[in-house]
Amino acid sequence: MRVLGIDCGCERTGYGLIDSDGRAHRLISAGVIVTSPKNSLAERLREIAHAVGEIVRAHAPDSAAVEEVFYAQNVKTALRLAHARGVILCAIAEAGVPLGEYSPLQIKNTVVGYGRADKAQVKLMVRSLLHLENEIASEDASDALAVAICHATTSVSLARMGAVR
Amino acid sequence: MRVLGIDCGCERTGYGLIDSDGRAHRLISAGVIVTSPKNSLAERLREIAHAVGEIVRAHAPDSAAVEEVFYAQNVKTALRLAHARGVILCAIAEAGVPLGEYSPLQIKNTVVGYGRADKAQVKLMVRSLLHLENEIASEDASDALAVAICHATTSVSLARMGAVR
Repeated sequence: MRVLGIDCGCERTGYGLIDSDGRAHRLISAGVIVTSPKNSLAERLREIAHAVGEIVRAHAPDSAAVEEVFYAQNVKTALRLAHARGVILCAIAEAGVPLGEYSPLQIKNTVVGYGRADKAQVKLMVRSLLHLENEIASEDASDALAVAICHATTSVSLARMGAVR
Repeated sequence: MRVLGIDCGCERTGYGLIDSDGRAHRLISAGVIVTSPKNSLAERLREIAHAVGEIVRAHAPDSAAVEEVFYAQNVKTALRLAHARGVILCAIAEAGVPLGEYSPLQIKNTVVGYGRADKAQVKLMVRSLLHLENEIASEDASDALAVAICHATTSVSLARMGAVR
């Protein structure tokens, strides 16, 4: 299955595409959508919607996954992020791609085996699971790949257990 | 000028279109986009994006206006609203329509003359300002019309003062 993972943000949205059978994962593409700081929020959201639409068209993922929105730290930041997330969910629904949502805890547990892992540990494990020679340049892309790996692993496990998702 | 006011929400999004010279306002159209409770959040956001796109195409507003997001009451509700707001801002940017944003205080001050007015008072003043014989059926539509009236009034006042918006 081909999975698109997205790490939502108004300024920077990470994305990562993998092919996976739920155990072995292969990197297809990863990167960051960087919106222009000169633009208004509305225009930045439009940039994100277009970019996500293009990525979906170019790579035709079987499913997509995002992090659940959480607001432990800063409500203002979370509200801004929710705007970007809304646009991203909409673009994915528009493309008819099924969507999975995971908490940061679930993602870290699945990818690192430890729910309170830090960004560096996630990055290291993503690199290892995808057998990448070089380090992943961007944390946003690495986080997006972690969501994709979490979704692939979880979906296949659930399918094996006969559960319906 | 023709102004589209929008009262954002995932479940119900009110909209109202007026023609205005900044003092006299005329109702063009108003209503509520109601999304299906059977649908996922992503699909509801898609419903909203399509409906807003259609309204803009049908009525070709010169500008649009929304309420600023505020989170005085419930963070979870505000985060959900921010998803809808993201999609709406994106649809407006996509259509190339300039956008104004106003706080609830500004809207009530402009429409009712009192920043702490309640929904019933806003509804009454909107009805009066638009010279409507019948009551406005929906509070969401009434709130959207209030945003439109606020934007029309504010834009024209600012233009008169020679300010640039």
